[in-house]
Order: sequence, then structure tokens, then C-alpha cells
Amino acid sequence: MGGMDRVFETTRAKGEVGVVEKKVFTMPSYTTLGGKTIRDVRIGYETYGKLNARGDNAIFIAHYFSGTSHAAGRYAHTDEEPGYWDAIIGPGKAIDTDRYFVVSADTLANVNTGDPNMVTTGPASINPDTGKQYGLDFPVVTIRDFVNVQKALVDALGIRKLHAMAGPSMGSMQAIEWATAYPEMVERVVAVIPAGLEADPYLVGMLNVWTAPILLDAAWNNGDYQGAQGPIKGLAMALKTITLNGRHPGWANAAFGRKSEEGGDLLQDLSARYAIEAVLDKVTTDRVATLDANSLLYTAKACQLFSLGHEGKLLDAVDRIQARVLMMPAASDLLMLPQYAQKAVDVLRARGKNVEYAVLEGEGGHFDGLLIIEQADAVLRKFLEN
Amino acid sequence: MGGMDRVFETTRAKGEVGVVEKKVFTMPSYTTLGGKTIRDVRIGYETYGKLNARGDNAIFIAHYFSGTSHAAGRYAHTDEEPGYWDAIIGPGKAIDTDRYFVVSADTLANVNTGDPNMVTTGPASINPDTGKQYGLDFPVVTIRDFVNVQKALVDALGIRKLHAMAGPSMGSMQAIEWATAYPEMVERVVAVIPAGLEADPYLVGMLNVWTAPILLDAAWNNGDYQGAQGPIKGLAMALKTITLNGRHPGWANAAFGRKSEEGGDLLQDLSARYAIEAVLDKVTTDRVATLDANSLLYTAKACQLFSLGHEGKLLDAVDRIQARVLMMPAASDLLMLPQYAQKAVDVLRARGKNVEYAVLEGEGGHFDGLLIIEQADAVLRKFLEN
Repeated sequence: MGGMDRVFETTRAKGEVGVVEKKVFTMPSYTTLGGKTIRDVRIGYETYGKLNARGDNAIFIAHYFSGTSHAAGRYAHTDEEPGYWDAIIGPGKAIDTDRYFVVSADTLANVNTGDPNMVTTGPASINPDTGKQYGLDFPVVTIRDFVNVQKALVDALGIRKLHAMAGPSMGSMQAIEWATAYPEMVERVVAVIPAGLEADPYLVGMLNVWTAPILLDAAWNNGDYQGAQGPIKGLAMALKTITLNGRHPGWANAAFGRKSEEGGDLLQDLSARYAIEAVLDKVTTDRVATLDANSLLYTAKACQLFSLGHEGKLLDAVDRIQARVLMMPAASDLLMLPQYAQKAVDVLRARGKNVEYAVLEGEGGHFDGLLIIEQADAVLRKFLEN
Repeated sequence: MGGMDRVFETTRAKGEVGVVEKKVFTMPSYTTLGGKTIRDVRIGYETYGKLNARGDNAIFIAHYFSGTSHAAGRYAHTDEEPGYWDAIIGPGKAIDTDRYFVVSADTLANVNTGDPNMVTTGPASINPDTGKQYGLDFPVVTIRDFVNVQKALVDALGIRKLHAMAGPSMGSMQAIEWATAYPEMVERVVAVIPAGLEADPYLVGMLNVWTAPILLDAAWNNGDYQGAQGPIKGLAMALKTITLNGRHPGWANAAFGRKSEEGGDLLQDLSARYAIEAVLDKVTTDRVATLDANSLLYTAKACQLFSLGHEGKLLDAVDRIQARVLMMPAASDLLMLPQYAQKAVDVLRARGKNVEYAVLEGEGGHFDGLLIIEQADAVLRKFLEN
């Protein structure tokens, strides 16, 4: 009968979660891992599905570096695109909103400060002590800080257990951090295109390269641009690097090949560009207006600082984990290399943890963790049901 | 007897090529692939071993992006380091200078303009028409242009056949370009950490990311910095990106792990750095003084433009190749991905070419094509003897 149910469920039509409402969670104050207190913390969140009476059917979705809490659904029927993991979140989908209560929240220091549907507290927020933007006076925040604020939200919502804590990329950092920070609450971790159990020093170097152009841009002004446009050239270059590092030759060949930009003559003009260059420049300059450079620096630092147990206590942190873990890298990922996930699996297994491993097969690079996530449907469905 | 000879040779002591003399090759003028004439072309070169009477025992070594013609030996006994491929070039080594006459030359627009042992003609050279540095008035140059100037040098030296044309990374582009440009002269191509038969669009994007910080630096001044220090901050950032892209987590973990810089407090100070960041910053700022930013832009453009047959005629160009080809990627290469070499092998074989494939096994990334090249000794020796 259970088997029949399951067949029925997996074959029924998949739906959308429908129109999503953005809500705001507030905390009068929050004290960071580094011991600094932030007053009037506000983060945006959204929910899909209903919490059951026992408060144990919740799945929390943590977002990636440049993402927001908009994991599924649309804010309005007219929205062109649904949330980033809409393919696996919704009625009848792997993260089935008829069964699970799904919560997703914006991180502290979220980079999308120009997105009207994103709410965060970060360097672009007004410091209540000065009435001006924090800029670099905002304290360093960590993945643990993201998680601690999420924990306060989860408590406020009446959630007693997380059936799963899931997320791609930086979201995977939050997912596994949750499992060691609040082990009794997290039953499953779904770590997609994951960094592993800590940011590899090579990833630390890549994050440095991402942020470097912002620091080089004179308009950054040591973080003090107070509502002005800020270092948009440096920010655009950061985004370009991120976009490329998130991709793979498979994408570059399919989308552009060696086409040159219309009207340019590459043999005559040093500034002529290939199509891939023109598109990288355009995409990133288009998006710059909605992002904040300082917030990108803080988010990058949070990723660099990611290390279960926080430097030198990784195995203790691993030992605290009670959750079953699903590690799911993308085969063509050049940013969060599959070897990071494999290393994490080895460590978790060596410490007696219950770990599953599956690979997203594609040629899109890191972004396959978003773009072909539907491929994870069966594995994810099974992982969540057992 | 031949067998005995070979055993004797491969087991005898390997030596160094000894003190190397830098020479200068000049051309009154050279006309680029784009149809622009450069007057008073000068490039540096060095040779090891002796040309035989038939002029057919020469091996030409083409250098990598940030390299020079210093492939082996030392300019003085006191030099700390020999040339970059010294492990495979010398008496008794795979590229045996007792048997082969080895030539290596500086490319046009070489980036190492502050290296007293490098001689090039590029944007930092004095334009004889104006008496000032060319800057962006220097014409776009291509891998074919590098090769054409090398051909003039080879002719001037009395070389009639290249027993092999070899090089790592950008050197591999020159090697395979030689084989299609002057097929009757090139008997073997040794393409190490190779780009393949053309720059992949993804590599084109990476090269764009390398050059972008130079363009962002106000001191670049649209290429017109005339002997001034120029955009050294942008150049340092370019070098940092190149250095990281040339490496791999295996290197990052072995060299740094997650160590932080001494005295920094990462949880309190946004500007505190991990050890890998501090070293990347230091290495690249140390080296900036000897490099020219405009030359880096031109060299990057040459690499982006690399495409056998020059856009759309790749298979015709492949069909002209007579040489046997050895493609040798590095397993951990994140810049010239092994798949680029595999793709090239597939195309060459499909066109009936004689191709061998071998992999450098290491965790150092792209730079393994220099750092562990000794691993290629046996494969290379056999390839050169057959």
C-alpha cells in the first residue's frame, strides 16, 4: 500500500507552488560568532506548503552566493521566471509542498540589495547608531551567523525538526553547518554543488580573485560610498569572473563557439571582442545596478571562513552531525570541484556518518546545480522518503 | 646495436646545457597576419647543442604565456634557477643536446619587458615612426605571427627541418601552428598542457578575465603610459588570476591549507587574509615590476585568436599537417583542461593524423607542464626517436 502510494505520488502531475509572499523576520539584536552585536536584524523569507501539527515536516532551503530566498514559485503570475529550484520544489515534485513545509530565507549581507523582494541586514543597511550605512563598520559575518539567524526564524515559525536542510553551493555550506550547529534538529542534509566540509584553500583564493576588482575600483573608496553608485566597474568585473567560474567549456561552446561580436575586427582592433566576451560584459553590467559591492565582499568572506567547527575543530564538528547527508556535485563543476564533495564523503564515512553521493551529469559547470537540478528528482525524492 | 646504444644513452648521466648566451635576431620589417608592417623587429633567442651538416636535427621550443626563450641552462653559473624545461633539455636528457640543436625564441609582444635577458618587439618598443612607445598603436599580433618570425630565424640559422616543434601551453599553440604553416619543415609536434587546435571559447573568456583588471586601472590610461610605471595594480591582479588559474587545490592544500596570515584576525577584520591570499598578493606584486601591461593585453589577444586556419578553416589547416603529434595535458589542469587535448586528438585522428596522447599525473594544475615535466622523459624520448 505504501508502495502504491509512492507510485501514485511520483507519477501524478507536478504543479507550481503558486504566488509567493515575501515576509520579514526581525530580531532586536543578534551577536555574531565574532562577538559583535547587530541591532534591528531583518531578513526576508518565504514559505511554501504547510507546517504539520508536530512541526516536523519542514525543509529549509539555503541559497547560493548571489541568490535570494526565492527558491520556488512566482511573486506574481506575470513573473517570467520562477524561483531557482522551482523544478524540484512544488506539489508532486521531489520537495513536495503537499507534504513538506518549505522555508527559505535571505542571508545576512545578501548581495541583492537592489532587489525589492530581498530583505537583509548587511553593510548596505543603516547603522542605527549613526543613521548612515554601515559600510565596513558592519561586523564580519560567517555561515554560522547565517544559520543562527535562520534558527531563530525556524523557532519563531514553530518548527521542531527539519526533515531536511538543503541548498546549492553556499547553500550547501549552510546546510551542513546547520547539521553540526543544531544536530538534534536536522534529520537530513542535501548538499548540492557543495564546497564540502570547509572552503578549500583554492576556493579561498578564487574568492579573493572575485573580490579584488572591487578593491581596485577607486569608487569603492574603502567601502564608504553611502548610497552613491559605488564601484560598479569593479563589481561588474567581479560578476564577470563569478559568471565564468560558474560555467564550463560545454556551455561556452554551445552558447557562443568562437563567434566574434558583430562589427568587430579582431585582427585589426585590440578592443574587438568575441561573442562570449561581449555577453559576459553585458550580463554583468546589466546586473550590477541591483547588487551591492560591500555585501559581495562580506558574502565572499563568509564563504572563505566556512569551516565546520571553525578552524581546527572539523572532526569534532563532524562527530556532532546526526543527519543523513546527500552530497551531489555537478560533474562539470570548475568552481566547487567534485573532488571537494568526494573528500567530504570520505571524511563523513570515516567518522561513521550515513552519506549518499550522486552526481549531476552535465556540461554547464557549477550552475548545473541550479539549471539541471530536475535531474536530481528521483535521487532526492528517495533520500527524503527514507 | 641500436638497442645497445639506446640503453647506454638513456642510462648515462644527465647534464646541464651550461652557460647560455642570449642572442638577438633582427628583421628589417615584418608584415602581420592582419596586414600591418612592423619595422626593425628584434627578438631574443638562445640555442643549445649543435646543428648538424644536414640541418635536420633542430628542435624548436616555444614558450608559454608569461615565459621567455630561457628554456634550459643558466645565463651565469650563479643563477639560482635554470630555464623552465631544463629537466628535459640537456646532454642525455629527453631533448638531448648531444643529438639535437635546440632553439628557443622570445615571442613578439613578450610580457617580460623588464627582464634584461628578454628581447622582443611589442607595444613597449619604440615606434621608429614616432620615437615613442607604440602602446596601442602596435598592431594586433597572432600565434601565426610569432611562428612566422620564428620561421625567419630558423631559416637564418640554416635549419632545414625541425626534428620537433615543442612547447607548453601558449608554446603548444605555436608548435601546432608551425605544423600547419610550414608542414614540410615540421616532423614532430610536442604539445604540452595544450590548448588543442584552437582556443576554446571558455579559454577566450578566461583570457578576458585576465586582462580586465588592467583596463579597469586608471593608470592604464588607454595604453598610453609611456615609460611610466603604468597600471601596476591592475597588472598585479591579472597576475594573481593567472597564477591561481594555473594552479589546483592539490597545490593550495599542500602549500597553505587553511592557514591565515600571521597577525590577522579573520573573524574581526574584513581585510585579514588567509595565507594563500597573502602569498598570491606578494608573488604577483613582486613580479609586476618586470612585466608590461600592454604586452599582456597583446599576448592574451594572440591566445584568444589562436585557431588553426584562422576562423572557419580549421579542418583545412589540420589536413596540411604532416607531423606526428604528441598531446600531453596535465591531469589536474584547470586552465587548459585535458578535454581540450582530447578533443584535438579526436579531430586529428579523424583526419588520419598520427597522434599520441599521454597525461602528466600530478596535483599542481596547469603549471605541472613545467614543474613535473621530467615525468614526460620516457614518453618524449621515445616519441623523438621514432
